[in-house]
Amino acid sequence: MKAADKTLNDLFTEILKDTYSAEKQVLRALGKMSKAAESEKLAVALDAHRAETEGQIDRLQQIFEMLGKPARGKTCEAINGILEEANEIAQEFKGSEVLDAGIIAAQQAVEHYEITRYGTLKSWAAELGLEEAVPLLAQTLEEERKTDEILTKLAEERVNQDAAEAGAEGE
Amino acid sequence: MKAADKTLNDLFTEILKDTYSAEKQVLRALGKMSKAAESEKLAVALDAHRAETEGQIDRLQQIFEMLGKPARGKTCEAINGILEEANEIAQEFKGSEVLDAGIIAAQQAVEHYEITRYGTLKSWAAELGLEEAVPLLAQTLEEERKTDEILTKLAEERVNQDAAEAGAEGE
Repeated sequence: MKAADKTLNDLFTEILKDTYSAEKQVLRALGKMSKAAESEKLAVALDAHRAETEGQIDRLQQIFEMLGKPARGKTCEAINGILEEANEIAQEFKGSEVLDAGIIAAQQAVEHYEITRYGTLKSWAAELGLEEAVPLLAQTLEEERKTDEILTKLAEERVNQDAAEAGAEGE
Repeated sequence: MKAADKTLNDLFTEILKDTYSAEKQVLRALGKMSKAAESEKLAVALDAHRAETEGQIDRLQQIFEMLGKPARGKTCEAINGILEEANEIAQEFKGSEVLDAGIIAAQQAVEHYEITRYGTLKSWAAELGLEEAVPLLAQTLEEERKTDEILTKLAEERVNQDAAEAGAEGE
């Protein structure tokens, strides 16, 4: 097919494949990040999101089925880069007091990438009249936003706890 | 320095460098994307954000100065991957009716990466007591959010216009 003949359907499929590959890469990474995390609370949150991610992959497979296309992703270079940075941070700050802050920031970059992708896919699905795909994409989008909020809260708790500890030391 | 001795200051500097490199890569990419865009309105929006990005790079340089560190970035692998995907989309959909939709989606992925990075940097700057850095980071964060909104509006306008044209053809 010539580039000029391509349609929104092609663009949707392209980004769907990209997102499918991204989620599978994220699934593997979440297990590693959870093991690396210092705080139990952060590990629990990452594990919970890992389980959620399995459901998200399943939803993407359902959409491939609706399109009558095989669920297959081409490597997502964007998430590759984001996860590469996350790994670097986890290595460089291993054992330090700010390792968890680094892991949270890295995982929030992952969430934001997914938020933008699902936002785009959802609006294109509506435009294409893929009415059964829209609620599936909306559900995942909501989960990604929620995870981002949970991570923000964990980051704030860490700051407050550090401040409280500093206060106690100063007494 | 051993990993275990690293502090929030080190983490802040690490992500500051990453973001500085990202912005410089984005600056180059925005010029290419603006040239590739079909619609005048999208090109104008990308050019406006390009000018804004120069100011954002300048703000990051000011923060490096505050820290007494040279403004130097290590290649940001995340933005590398995001821009690589953007280029692929621009090539694969060149001349097609949905090229602009693809460019908008790609640029929104860039904005979301920057939103998460500036959000993190802003909260760490506050924690570190870098009081002059906080408003600089807040200003850029606001600009990135605004750009994301503008892109969402342009995407919606495209859909409405297509629907109106389809309606006119049907009459």
